[in-house]
Amino acid sequence: MTKKELIEQIRTKKSFLCVGLDPDTDKMPLHLKNSDDLIFEFNRAIIDATAPYCVSFKPNSAFYEAYGLKGVAALEKTILYIKTKYPKHFVIADAKRGDIGNTSAMYAKAFLQTMNADAITVAPYMGKDSIEPFLQYKGKWAIVLALTSNPGSSDFQMLDPGFKELYKHVITSCRSWGSDENMMFVVGATKAEWLKDIRAIIPDYFLLVPGIGAQGGSLEDVCKYGLSKDIGLLVNNSRGIIYAGTGTDFADMAAKEAKRIQIEMSNYIK
Amino acid sequence: MTKKELIEQIRTKKSFLCVGLDPDTDKMPLHLKNSDDLIFEFNRAIIDATAPYCVSFKPNSAFYEAYGLKGVAALEKTILYIKTKYPKHFVIADAKRGDIGNTSAMYAKAFLQTMNADAITVAPYMGKDSIEPFLQYKGKWAIVLALTSNPGSSDFQMLDPGFKELYKHVITSCRSWGSDENMMFVVGATKAEWLKDIRAIIPDYFLLVPGIGAQGGSLEDVCKYGLSKDIGLLVNNSRGIIYAGTGTDFADMAAKEAKRIQIEMSNYIK
Repeated sequence: MTKKELIEQIRTKKSFLCVGLDPDTDKMPLHLKNSDDLIFEFNRAIIDATAPYCVSFKPNSAFYEAYGLKGVAALEKTILYIKTKYPKHFVIADAKRGDIGNTSAMYAKAFLQTMNADAITVAPYMGKDSIEPFLQYKGKWAIVLALTSNPGSSDFQMLDPGFKELYKHVITSCRSWGSDENMMFVVGATKAEWLKDIRAIIPDYFLLVPGIGAQGGSLEDVCKYGLSKDIGLLVNNSRGIIYAGTGTDFADMAAKEAKRIQIEMSNYIK
Repeated sequence: MTKKELIEQIRTKKSFLCVGLDPDTDKMPLHLKNSDDLIFEFNRAIIDATAPYCVSFKPNSAFYEAYGLKGVAALEKTILYIKTKYPKHFVIADAKRGDIGNTSAMYAKAFLQTMNADAITVAPYMGKDSIEPFLQYKGKWAIVLALTSNPGSSDFQMLDPGFKELYKHVITSCRSWGSDENMMFVVGATKAEWLKDIRAIIPDYFLLVPGIGAQGGSLEDVCKYGLSKDIGLLVNNSRGIIYAGTGTDFADMAAKEAKRIQIEMSNYIK
């Protein structure tokens, strides 16, 4: 998907919501639990219910891998389902991969070709040759971790190796390896005021913002500091939407919560 | 596996060799190519041939994930085969995972419980809560990326946020989160002289050293600067061993190369 197509979707739907698909079978409604294909059935219901209110889905690979082969099969099936039924939705494989060049090339193949996601999240610690293989697929994206929303983000990302914090070094270096047509950055919403500094470095890049909802970030603050002239934001919510309800009406509850966020977002899209 | 058990294996076999299992079907012998289970059949032959000369196997998850479900099935089967037939070999899932706490917990479950590897490689960028879930399994290990052997290692790992390079901050911080009984570090062999500084910080930790062979590192230098009183090294070779031959005698060729390295290693084990 091109940047232009993504922006068109955002403007058409008045939404920059990304729904995070983090399946946890312990949290799923009881009436589904006899399904042979529980994870996929749960996801399908959530996807159908929330698709009108979001522009992106983000399955988190860990939550599938934890269930072994069956989980990975559900991940493949989920991505195929979205790409087939909702081809205009932007699918992010949240996999946080990164390794030496020839190994990163294998991860890129796994997620951007075999699974056919539109984007994959990438860990920057190993530097340029670990990131470049993810930039070689036309119409696909690498979303590089810059400033994350977890407590541990202060351990290394905030270290200052001269003039600026590590996460800013990551952003400025990566900017020279890719472009705003094939690269985005993860920036946690719990640090919304720092979006101002980040926007000064990369005014035109899309940012994937987790941490709204369960992780405590505020949409108002994210928009105040993070909006670009082309919106430039994908704001993720996982648990707040997909586990909004736990009864037979779980999909309706998810739709209701996604719609509530979409309406709030529409105020920020001129 | 405990540290004591690993050291015993190293002393018994006079080897600290780790054989990297990075399957690439394009590089496999022609006579195997009609197999329905090519990756596993290749791995099994390599494992049986090299097991006498090594103490560890390190399947690289990317090389399996690139083949989709079939590849992940081969990874599960490979680990199960080693754990069943060679229970004293230390199995490292080279997966470079790391995410916020609740997601890292899922990756830990995937590799240390569902797949039952002894260890997993972990990316440190997201800090403490991204690493701790990998330390919660008794007898299992997190192997944290410190200084890697690829060109991109200079991009961020060598930045100096006051007093010492980032990779040293990673080592000193991680040291306080785990112990030498559940944590190791990845240190690339292309920078063997820096092992001296690293040993000064963590004299008792095991180091996983990639980059011998195809990546250009020297075993002599690694031993000169990296050996601890308990050996403290696992030195990996992947392509140099598993693709030593490409004919019907590929497994014998792999054994020969593994044996050659083991004999060289035996000189360093008193």
